[in-house]
Amino acid sequence: MARYSPSIQNLISNLSKLPGIGGKSAQNIAFHILAMDDAEAAALTDSINAARTSTKRCSCCQNFTDRDPCPICSDPERDKTTVLVVETPRDVSTFERAREYNGLYHVLHGVFDPIKNKNISDTTIPDLINRLSQHEEITEVIIATNQTAEGNATALYLSRMLAPSGITVTRLASGLPMGSDIEYADDLTLMNALRGRVTLAGGREG
Amino acid sequence: MARYSPSIQNLISNLSKLPGIGGKSAQNIAFHILAMDDAEAAALTDSINAARTSTKRCSCCQNFTDRDPCPICSDPERDKTTVLVVETPRDVSTFERAREYNGLYHVLHGVFDPIKNKNISDTTIPDLINRLSQHEEITEVIIATNQTAEGNATALYLSRMLAPSGITVTRLASGLPMGSDIEYADDLTLMNALRGRVTLAGGREG
Repeated sequence: MARYSPSIQNLISNLSKLPGIGGKSAQNIAFHILAMDDAEAAALTDSINAARTSTKRCSCCQNFTDRDPCPICSDPERDKTTVLVVETPRDVSTFERAREYNGLYHVLHGVFDPIKNKNISDTTIPDLINRLSQHEEITEVIIATNQTAEGNATALYLSRMLAPSGITVTRLASGLPMGSDIEYADDLTLMNALRGRVTLAGGREG
Repeated sequence: MARYSPSIQNLISNLSKLPGIGGKSAQNIAFHILAMDDAEAAALTDSINAARTSTKRCSCCQNFTDRDPCPICSDPERDKTTVLVVETPRDVSTFERAREYNGLYHVLHGVFDPIKNKNISDTTIPDLINRLSQHEEITEVIIATNQTAEGNATALYLSRMLAPSGITVTRLASGLPMGSDIEYADDLTLMNALRGRVTLAGGREG
């Protein structure tokens, strides 16, 4: 039994609920917080409160933002005909960093996951359906959920749901990441890379 | 460039100052905090404030505590003749967990480290000296600083400082940890294990 006083124990237990923080890191962080000067500690708690107060979801793309619609949705330079569907706000920032995509986004805030009891209604899929019916200019939906069982199930569900609408539904290519060795690739990735192979030069005449 | 709103960016930057939290985990935690319900978020910030408000240093052993003197220093069952000197409050809890030690503690809150500009006065060594002069019943000081350059320098400094007082100064044994293979032991550990070897049976008559 660790002989911490109740308030320290409570702090440790709250910190260890954060993602990626185990018991040992929670203790480290707790003692770091106790040793902070007052200004530092206030900056930490204030930034938590400020971010929570000022952040809402964009009514259009559901991304976290401090103004509605968000900077991306309200940017006149962006291509309004394409919507890229991602699981989390972090994914938006990953695509923005790559500077390769100039369309709009839709953040699902979750995926369809029967095991964790996560339904379609726990994601923003209903908002997406609604958005697509209101915005006739959208011609393509790119599904960029993760290459996991849940991400793929969500992609499948979305593609079936959207099929009657006539909107083009695409999924990000699966294959070997750049810089990777074939030797270390897993079977599923290899299979996907083989199935999704692209032609580099024209075929023989038959 | 990540397109986070300023308040989210500020939260991420405050979180990434915590020990062991890199940029990616800070983003993960920030979005987790944004997705928390109000009660959870309040529990987190309240526990930070409560721990900081109610926690002070024990005037005797300098450990973090919510009452002064701390439960260990005020426990009549503990052996008041021995003081185990550790670097951090976490080390106290590690020793308590082992249930092997029944004396008192002294928490240095740091070590002597010229490279990081940490002086003796940045630790609670002056408080320890003061405590030893006030408490004549203390006969042994066990130095349990880490087996690092800084921990050893601090141990050496303390042992020289206390030598004239007549108090027995000891240092935790250094050697092979239980369950370890000699094959994987580093040279310094092997050297210490050899130098600190213990007799298992009596010697031959000379």
